[in-house]
Amino acid sequence: MKHVKYAQCVRCGKRYDAAPDLTNCSCGGILDVVYDYDYIKSVLTKEVLAGRKERSMWRYRELLPVEETTPDTPLRVGWSPLYEEPGLAAQLGLSRLWVKDDGQNPTASLKDRASAMAVAKAMEAGAKTIACSSTGNAASSLAGNAAAAGLKTYIFVPDRAPKGKVAQLMVFGANVISVKGNYEETFKMSAEAIERYGWYNRNAAINPYLSEGKKTVALEIAEQLDWKMPDYLAISVGDGCTIAGVWKGLKDLYAIGFIDKLPRLISAQSTGCCPLNRAILQGTDWEPMEENTIADSISVGVPRNADKALAAIRESRGLAVCVTDEEILAAACLLGRTCGVFGEPAGVAGTAALKKACEDGLIERGATAVSVVTGNGLKDVANAIRAGGEPLHIAPDLSEMVKGFAARGVTVE
Amino acid sequence: MKHVKYAQCVRCGKRYDAAPDLTNCSCGGILDVVYDYDYIKSVLTKEVLAGRKERSMWRYRELLPVEETTPDTPLRVGWSPLYEEPGLAAQLGLSRLWVKDDGQNPTASLKDRASAMAVAKAMEAGAKTIACSSTGNAASSLAGNAAAAGLKTYIFVPDRAPKGKVAQLMVFGANVISVKGNYEETFKMSAEAIERYGWYNRNAAINPYLSEGKKTVALEIAEQLDWKMPDYLAISVGDGCTIAGVWKGLKDLYAIGFIDKLPRLISAQSTGCCPLNRAILQGTDWEPMEENTIADSISVGVPRNADKALAAIRESRGLAVCVTDEEILAAACLLGRTCGVFGEPAGVAGTAALKKACEDGLIERGATAVSVVTGNGLKDVANAIRAGGEPLHIAPDLSEMVKGFAARGVTVE
Repeated sequence: MKHVKYAQCVRCGKRYDAAPDLTNCSCGGILDVVYDYDYIKSVLTKEVLAGRKERSMWRYRELLPVEETTPDTPLRVGWSPLYEEPGLAAQLGLSRLWVKDDGQNPTASLKDRASAMAVAKAMEAGAKTIACSSTGNAASSLAGNAAAAGLKTYIFVPDRAPKGKVAQLMVFGANVISVKGNYEETFKMSAEAIERYGWYNRNAAINPYLSEGKKTVALEIAEQLDWKMPDYLAISVGDGCTIAGVWKGLKDLYAIGFIDKLPRLISAQSTGCCPLNRAILQGTDWEPMEENTIADSISVGVPRNADKALAAIRESRGLAVCVTDEEILAAACLLGRTCGVFGEPAGVAGTAALKKACEDGLIERGATAVSVVTGNGLKDVANAIRAGGEPLHIAPDLSEMVKGFAARGVTVE
Repeated sequence: MKHVKYAQCVRCGKRYDAAPDLTNCSCGGILDVVYDYDYIKSVLTKEVLAGRKERSMWRYRELLPVEETTPDTPLRVGWSPLYEEPGLAAQLGLSRLWVKDDGQNPTASLKDRASAMAVAKAMEAGAKTIACSSTGNAASSLAGNAAAAGLKTYIFVPDRAPKGKVAQLMVFGANVISVKGNYEETFKMSAEAIERYGWYNRNAAINPYLSEGKKTVALEIAEQLDWKMPDYLAISVGDGCTIAGVWKGLKDLYAIGFIDKLPRLISAQSTGCCPLNRAILQGTDWEPMEENTIADSISVGVPRNADKALAAIRESRGLAVCVTDEEILAAACLLGRTCGVFGEPAGVAGTAALKKACEDGLIERGATAVSVVTGNGLKDVANAIRAGGEPLHIAPDLSEMVKGFAARGVTVE
């Protein structure tokens, strides 16, 4: 990879050759891929990009840690729509607001970007099998992207995993191991199996390439905005890999001169589980927290990518905003009703945090912002039911309909 | 609309001006939009199209019944991925096979194409409100697309409608009327309300514009295949509007010289509900049938667009192929495991029918085909569970894992 110099530990600074099967540093720290921006500038210009037909994350190959000869992965991951939302902007006191609907990915979440990268790197490593432990979007995106590429997967889930999510993995043909034990035991079993069989490891905070896949969401936003960056970029935060990826993408673009401004990140966590935001707000290191929120994809009490995430939020002079489950459900409805975008609870937490930051005066009136919706609402129908409320239940009689809506303050007309 | 001549009843031939709020002919027949292909040829060439940046169904405006001044609807509908699937092709004895994943639409089904058209025409008609009766993809796609455009919706559902689907409508802010009665009573109530309040009518077999929206799936397939058409195109059939739309799109392209071959349609219905396929197979007119299949989106015993659908299948020298629920579930797994595409039961019925047609020798070996997946598997998790089977349930012990997979014929390696 002529455009990649090496990988470097964010904790101790140790450097590693960018082999496709890199994991953590010997000190336990997470590695970061370091690019040769001078080389990239010599081959990638805005004009080159504008002329490219590819509409997927692989549009940005010069900024991605893959060999030139590595084929694009089969599913169309990325290039999700960025909608300008003047109505919602006005409601929040922003001058302009865009919503990036990353639920519009093959398996319906932003995680497809990381899993497609895992598949690409596994193929470079000559691996035939990828493994991870997860019950959520990481698992389903891995199962889908790997199936399309003809790779086998082993996915370890704790036996409390929701049947629907397990079914999706089974339909994608994953070898699913439902472990009689808690998540920690499940994770340890997966680590033991990966070690024993030499499977390719898809764990976002262990494999340094995955957040490089995730960063493509930021690259797309920038290009979709014609390289004019907003003041703020709001996104939900669990393990920390996604916000770290977003920041990496923005810094890449800044380094090669495609953008001349870096937005401030808004880190959205739940009040019920916010170890990273608590660290930011208190100016301390992070401590584990209970996991007490409906937003399951960001319900991470022990974030595995805290180092990169905290650095990203701090470097960007970011805002740490915690939202309650009620605020998350309200944001789901707000996005649905104002924008026609249907997000899962973790997916809309960024919008909830953006709204709260506007209301609390943390963001100046007239600012501009992008809010990323990270997963589709169909992923969690139970909470959509909680968010949406009840329809009008009536006999087939128009006068009953008029009366019923009147009681809700709706005039039928 | 310079490119539209008029609308014409497919039954009695009566012509109507193409007003935006057209419904059925006075004889009860369905109207068809008739284009001025000479004019269209003068303004639309393959080169013009190739230079266009728009990647949504509105890319094909010259072939769509909207005014030049009508704005694109806000959600990104269409331009879903078309995947070539050599592995599945080989399994089926086809020389080439492509899968169009139309579950990759904003509300996760092909119906977004019709609902976006409904929104565009409602806006032309100056309507502020759109209504329909449905519990399925038509309803959710209308709710989402209308919310994004700032239009109100009234959606009538029978009170047996699944809570999850109703929740999606509520999140999109639809005014949902859950009617204590069966579907027929619900439909009648909606018709009465639409008449009384003058709401814009989104019912695919009453509003002739909606299948013009649906036809964009065929336009895209043709362009994605660089105008080289396959021998067969398989798609699931319920009301008949979708397959009629697909055929209309193909004939449009043939009329303006973009393609020189029309694929034969494969009409996929369930053995438990196949009034249209029965009519084709028996060479008779259609008769109502019981609705007895898990593929709810095509469980239509009284198809409302039989005229156009039967004409499409017959004109194309199409195949009517009925598949059992078991074959549908097997096709869901086949698509998931071979292609990484996750479809709902009705969504994968086309693939099930294509497979059956290959196995039964209805299709010659070495033929080429496209199979359209019409809706996302997340729409129906219960049936995904039925399709996917059980994971391995074990204690956290690697030797148990090896033993468990061995019992399934899987060697862990």
